[in-house]
Amino acid sequence: MLEDVDTRLGRRFAFFTQSMIVLSLISFSVETLPGLSESVRQLLRVTEVFLVGLFTVEYLLRIWVVDKKFRYIFSFFGVIDLLAVLPFYLSTGLDLRSIRIFRLLRLFRILKLLRYSKAINRFHRALIIAKEEMILFSCVAMMLLYLSAVGIYYFENAVQPEQFKSIFHSLWWSLATLTTVGYGDLYPITAGGQVFTFFILIIGLGVIAVPTGLVASALSQARDEESINNLK
Amino acid sequence: MLEDVDTRLGRRFAFFTQSMIVLSLISFSVETLPGLSESVRQLLRVTEVFLVGLFTVEYLLRIWVVDKKFRYIFSFFGVIDLLAVLPFYLSTGLDLRSIRIFRLLRLFRILKLLRYSKAINRFHRALIIAKEEMILFSCVAMMLLYLSAVGIYYFENAVQPEQFKSIFHSLWWSLATLTTVGYGDLYPITAGGQVFTFFILIIGLGVIAVPTGLVASALSQARDEESINNLK
Amino acid sequence: MLEDVDTRLGRRFAFFTQSMIVLSLISFSVETLPGLSESVRQLLRVTEVFLVGLFTVEYLLRIWVVDKKFRYIFSFFGVIDLLAVLPFYLSTGLDLRSIRIFRLLRLFRILKLLRYSKAINRFHRALIIAKEEMILFSCVAMMLLYLSAVGIYYFENAVQPEQFKSIFHSLWWSLATLTTVGYGDLYPITAGGQVFTFFILIIGLGVIAVPTGLVASALSQARDEESINNLK
Amino acid sequence: MLEDVDTRLGRRFAFFTQSMIVLSLISFSVETLPGLSESVRQLLRVTEVFLVGLFTVEYLLRIWVVDKKFRYIFSFFGVIDLLAVLPFYLSTGLDLRSIRIFRLLRLFRILKLLRYSKAINRFHRALIIAKEEMILFSCVAMMLLYLSAVGIYYFENAVQPEQFKSIFHSLWWSLATLTTVGYGDLYPITAGGQVFTFFILIIGLGVIAVPTGLVASALSQARDEESINNLK
Repeated sequence: MLEDVDTRLGRRFAFFTQSMIVLSLISFSVETLPGLSESVRQLLRVTEVFLVGLFTVEYLLRIWVVDKKFRYIFSFFGVIDLLAVLPFYLSTGLDLRSIRIFRLLRLFRILKLLRYSKAINRFHRALIIAKEEMILFSCVAMMLLYLSAVGIYYFENAVQPEQFKSIFHSLWWSLATLTTVGYGDLYPITAGGQVFTFFILIIGLGVIAVPTGLVASALSQARDEESINNLK
Repeated sequence: MLEDVDTRLGRRFAFFTQSMIVLSLISFSVETLPGLSESVRQLLRVTEVFLVGLFTVEYLLRIWVVDKKFRYIFSFFGVIDLLAVLPFYLSTGLDLRSIRIFRLLRLFRILKLLRYSKAINRFHRALIIAKEEMILFSCVAMMLLYLSAVGIYYFENAVQPEQFKSIFHSLWWSLATLTTVGYGDLYPITAGGQVFTFFILIIGLGVIAVPTGLVASALSQARDEESINNLK
Repeated sequence: MLEDVDTRLGRRFAFFTQSMIVLSLISFSVETLPGLSESVRQLLRVTEVFLVGLFTVEYLLRIWVVDKKFRYIFSFFGVIDLLAVLPFYLSTGLDLRSIRIFRLLRLFRILKLLRYSKAINRFHRALIIAKEEMILFSCVAMMLLYLSAVGIYYFENAVQPEQFKSIFHSLWWSLATLTTVGYGDLYPITAGGQVFTFFILIIGLGVIAVPTGLVASALSQARDEESINNLK
Repeated sequence: MLEDVDTRLGRRFAFFTQSMIVLSLISFSVETLPGLSESVRQLLRVTEVFLVGLFTVEYLLRIWVVDKKFRYIFSFFGVIDLLAVLPFYLSTGLDLRSIRIFRLLRLFRILKLLRYSKAINRFHRALIIAKEEMILFSCVAMMLLYLSAVGIYYFENAVQPEQFKSIFHSLWWSLATLTTVGYGDLYPITAGGQVFTFFILIIGLGVIAVPTGLVASALSQARDEESINNLK
């Protein structure tokens, strides 16, 4: 029943688990809000205990049901399922402040959402088709990020020593600029820096954006191959 | 005549209705300008009454003309046509302040513009072709948005507690960053947060931008299928 | 010689004209710099007179050379060539301040650069291939821009009356957001406005960005057709 | 051994060289950090001397090993290899302040990373396929950048003379806007300037973004040709 999504009960169970995962994510987010009243905190704690209990039962049931137990436990989803509940049990014996960093692990629960989708395979094949270009473009993009950081450092450091402190600070500018996010916390003000940005952007937009097009065309290629296989 | 866009009179009527819809949108927008003189307000009110009258007549004519009356009334455009005039009649009997929120409904008039386009069918087929990937990418994008919000919250909350107050506030940052809008109201200042942003953007740009390429390639596929069908 | 770019002299002449056009654009831009010395202004004025003289001679030569004179004069490039020099002669008899706005026309000179490119035809065919989708997406994009402006106006006007003054001011926000420019002069601060922005961006990114992919795929289709025609 | 990446020793050597290049880049970046202690500076200087020595030995070995020595020295990678070490020897005899600008050349070391990738050939072919359109779109993009700078200058100069000082300053705005970076240091505030920005963005997004799609489709075409050649 746990594994079979085709039966009515299995579908219902999967749907229920999904809702609980979403609920736990919401309760986790609400917890970070500042200025919560004590009653809300209480409610969140109860929800947390209930959900961890539920996920633990689900995890144990899955081990019990599955034939190849060790294979499940060390599979991707087995580890995710364990990590979804383990931090709760571990954190109880620890100092309250250090709990916070462990709670980050609780987020792996989201990855459970991945389990029920079939379209991932097609995406996987598309990545294999476009692998070489992806790696090449990633390398070129990294090099461009670094080179543009060095360039802007030399142009802007003298005029804005507080903003473009070092190449590491310039890298942050490179990232925000080449991805076209453009927060506006760092920007060149010298004529040289602005002309440099012009050339970097002309080259950089292509380099950063091409992989996107590659994945899209690889995906449609994977779709074509699939429909050809279906025809055979 | 109302339905037949192929006759000369029908085309003229459709063109006239379209102009009136645009006029009503402009007059609605002008109404929101602060500091309007009383004479302008008067003019806007007269325009509004005139347009609502016109749209009402058009709506009643359409019901009168159409054979299957109930089917029209409960069709998408029938409901839109009704919603384009109904708020005006309902709002007269209500308190003046609550009118404002009802006026928002008047905007559905724009959707009437959809009526006259044929190319929508092709777009509809393209969406069906790329449906699975769209859903998958949307889910992955949602997960990425959430994960990046949690990550940046842990990196930045300690240093900028006023900006990154909670995961909900961080989600706003995630949205502005992953869509590359980058308003600049929120941005990481810690080295950890900036390195995290780097990885999130490298992954995120692909995930958010790929669906665009998918729709484009699906649309050209739909165009191909259409021209093949035309050849037969 | 003027029309024939295949002879050596013709190529040289075309290259010389292009350089002069670029020179005139640079001198026009330099003129706008504040705080120029009198000698620089003098130099710019001399350059301007020289260039206008040159372009006038070129224009008259072209009329003299061409067989179908009227056809050239009223062709796209004939009008551009005339507009490149006419403002200079007209402005001399006018008040100095109004000259500035006429000088804007001088920029049409750049369009002369279009003359010498052949790849435009392919782009033209691509636009015809993708015409219907382009129009549909443009309409949907316009509607989305307007709807998002109205939405954000209702969410933000009460809290930020100075920023989101009217629907027209909100339209500026819509434009900066949906194109992902994100200047950061206007952004929603209410939770409602931010959730609204989320949905608008999810829909809007596709709508605004798809036409780009359409043109690209139409261009490669036009390239395919061309190579098939070459094979025949 | 130096040239043969297929042997075990060759692979190890290549891997070692790559690591050293990355190390030198990191040490170069760390050097720009303000407020380094003397001991760290000492360490960086030692690392630098060691790496330059290593790269020099590698360069001389390569000359010694290769058959056609002059061809290597004047090849792309020969020059890069030389430039990776030369500035160090030259800078020792120079004034300390001028060293900084020479150190920029040290960055060419990164380009050595290019040597080991094969996928570049495919990208090269894709560029040839899409060359004409790329040039056309680049020209149109340049024209659009200039025209939008002139337009915004006329709209905004009167109201924001400090921001939109000249056409050159406006060009910086054009760049940040048409690439959708949108730093937010410059933005139009007049209604005319904002409407102008609207039209510029509608046209500009297509013009700037299309080349990206072109490269992607040309790359998939190059991939197709490759697989057809492999089948023969």
